[in-house]
Amino acid sequence: MSTYTAITLAQRPEPGPIGRETFNVVQKVVPSAGPGEIIVSQTYMSLDPAMIGWMSGDTKSYIPPVEVGAVMRSSGLGEVIESNHPDFALGDRVMGMMGWTEYFVSTGQGLNKVPAGITPEQALSVFALPGLTATQGLFNVAKPKSGETIVVSGAAGSVGSIVGQLAKADGLHVIGVAGDDEKCQWIVDELGFDGAINYKTDDIDAKLSELAPKGVDIFFENTGGAIQQHIFEHMNAHGRIAVCGMISDYAASTPSAGPNWIPIIKKRLIIQGFTMPDHYAKVPDLLAKLTPYVMQGKIKYRAHVLEGIESAIDGLNMLLTGANKGKLMVKL
Amino acid sequence: MSTYTAITLAQRPEPGPIGRETFNVVQKVVPSAGPGEIIVSQTYMSLDPAMIGWMSGDTKSYIPPVEVGAVMRSSGLGEVIESNHPDFALGDRVMGMMGWTEYFVSTGQGLNKVPAGITPEQALSVFALPGLTATQGLFNVAKPKSGETIVVSGAAGSVGSIVGQLAKADGLHVIGVAGDDEKCQWIVDELGFDGAINYKTDDIDAKLSELAPKGVDIFFENTGGAIQQHIFEHMNAHGRIAVCGMISDYAASTPSAGPNWIPIIKKRLIIQGFTMPDHYAKVPDLLAKLTPYVMQGKIKYRAHVLEGIESAIDGLNMLLTGANKGKLMVKL
Repeated sequence: MSTYTAITLAQRPEPGPIGRETFNVVQKVVPSAGPGEIIVSQTYMSLDPAMIGWMSGDTKSYIPPVEVGAVMRSSGLGEVIESNHPDFALGDRVMGMMGWTEYFVSTGQGLNKVPAGITPEQALSVFALPGLTATQGLFNVAKPKSGETIVVSGAAGSVGSIVGQLAKADGLHVIGVAGDDEKCQWIVDELGFDGAINYKTDDIDAKLSELAPKGVDIFFENTGGAIQQHIFEHMNAHGRIAVCGMISDYAASTPSAGPNWIPIIKKRLIIQGFTMPDHYAKVPDLLAKLTPYVMQGKIKYRAHVLEGIESAIDGLNMLLTGANKGKLMVKL
Repeated sequence: MSTYTAITLAQRPEPGPIGRETFNVVQKVVPSAGPGEIIVSQTYMSLDPAMIGWMSGDTKSYIPPVEVGAVMRSSGLGEVIESNHPDFALGDRVMGMMGWTEYFVSTGQGLNKVPAGITPEQALSVFALPGLTATQGLFNVAKPKSGETIVVSGAAGSVGSIVGQLAKADGLHVIGVAGDDEKCQWIVDELGFDGAINYKTDDIDAKLSELAPKGVDIFFENTGGAIQQHIFEHMNAHGRIAVCGMISDYAASTPSAGPNWIPIIKKRLIIQGFTMPDHYAKVPDLLAKLTPYVMQGKIKYRAHVLEGIESAIDGLNMLLTGANKGKLMVKL
C-alpha cells in the first residue's frame, strides 16, 4: 500500500511565531474512492491569513476552529485521480477546502471545477479567497464611488492588491500601505496604484496628507497596526472602513489598542467587519462581478510558491511577518 | 434702555474642567423687532453633551465650531414677546437654537412652535435633541429586532434613558450602564430596564455575562470609557454599535484608546457614528415615530433644572462628570 503525507494540528499555537510543534506530519495510506466518492491529488495548497485565526480555540468566531488532531484546514487545487461520481471525470481540476494533505477523499460537495485556461496560480491568486474577498469587501461593504480616495493596508498582499486594482479600474484615487520599499514600488509601478506608504519607514501622517490631499473616503483594513491611529484623522465625513484582516495582531501576545472613537462620531464613519463564509451563497455573483476585470487585464497578481507540503508551516510565519511577495501557496 | 444678559465664548477650553474664563458674561440692549422679525424671551436653555464638541476649534467636525466672541450655541425654549412676522403671534412658545441669551432676535427660520399641553421640561427632555437622537440612533442606525439584547451606556442620561425605554417598548432585553447606584436603580425601577451596570464599582465583564447571557446584539454608545473594551467580548455575530457620544473623552487631555479590532472581523460587527445635523430633514418623521411611545406613557424622563443663565457654565461640567440627574437645562 502506498502512503501520502498530511499535516494535522497538534496543539493550539502560542502567541508569536508558529513553531513546528504546533503540527504533526503524518503518513496515511492512499485511499480508494467509495461509492459516490472521488479522490483528488492536491497539487497546490493556498496559504491565507485567515488560517491563523482558524487555529485558535475561539469557538465564538465566524467558523469553528480546526480541531486538535484534525488535518489543518486550507483551500487548494488538485486533479481528480479516481471517480465514482457522475459529475467528476478523471483529470478534472477542482478547487475547494482540502486541507494540508496530498490526497483528498470527497463526495464532491464544496468542490468547484477550475475552467480550462486558468493556471493554478491564477486560480488561487485571483479566483479563490483573495479575489472573492476583495470583491465582496470593496463593492458590497465599502461601496466605492468614482473619484473617491481609498487607502488599502496590506496593499501588496493577496487581497489588498486586488482591492486596489479593482478600485483603480473604477476611477478611484488609490493609496496602498505596505511594509517594504519593494512592495511599495510594485503596487505603484506594476499595479498602477497612485501612491504607496511604507508603514515601517515613512511618516504615515505626512504621507497621507501628501498622497490623499482631499482626505480618505474608504479605508480597506487588512493588517491592523499604526495605520489605524492615523487614518481616523484623515477620513472624510461619511467615510467607510471595511475591516477584512488584522494580520499584525493575529499572533500578538497583546493585541494592539485601537483608535479612540471620537472621530467615528465627528465624521459619521461606518466601520464594518466581514468574512467570506457569510457570503458563500453569493460566490457566483462575486465571480460574475470580478471576471470582467480579469478578462480586461486589469488584475495583475504575483504568486509566491513554496515547494513541498511541510513548507506550509514556515509559510504561515511568512504571512505573519509579511515576508511573502505575493499570494502565498505551496506546490505539492 | 433695558438690558439683558448673554454669554459668549471667550476662548477655546483646555482639557479638563471648563473654567469660567472660557466665557464672557455680557450685557446687551434689548432689541426691537425689525421688519419680518420676532423677539423671543428665552425661558429654558438646554445643556447637551454635544455642546462640549462645539466649543473646540475643530473645523473638520460635523458642524462649524462656535466662534470665539460669539454667543455660546445651545437649543432652548421661549415665548414670542414681539412679532413683525405673520406666522408668529405674541405668546407663541417656540424652540430652536437660540444660544446662551435671555433674548433672541429671529426671522423665524429654524424655530418650531411648541404644541399646547407640552411642558417646557418635556419639550427639552423628550421632543428636542435627546428624543430625536435616541429615535434616529436606535431605529435608523442600530435597527433593533424584538428579542435582541441591547446595552446602552450613559443609560440615565438624556439620550440613553430614551433609547432604553424605546427598546424596552419594542420587546428588547435592555441593559443600562451608568455611573452611580442611584442612576442604576432609577433606570431599572422607574424606567423598566432589565438590568443595570455601575461602571465605576461593578465588574463589568461579570455583570455583562450575568445580565446578557445570550450576548449583546446592539451597543448604544453614549460615553466611551472602559465599557468598550468589555463589550466587544460580549457582542454577538452581526452585532451593531451605534456611536452617539463619547462624553468621557470630550474634555480628556489624552483620549482613551479604543478596543482592538479583531472582534470586528470575527463577529462581523457594524460600528456607525451619527450626529443629528445630518438628519434635520427627517425631524418630522422622527417625531412621528417617537410621539406614539410618549402618548402611550412609555417614555419617562426627569429634568435637572439649574437656575439663572450663568449656571450654564457649571452645568457643562456636570455633563462631563455625570453629576446631573436627568436632562440638564437652565431656567431663565
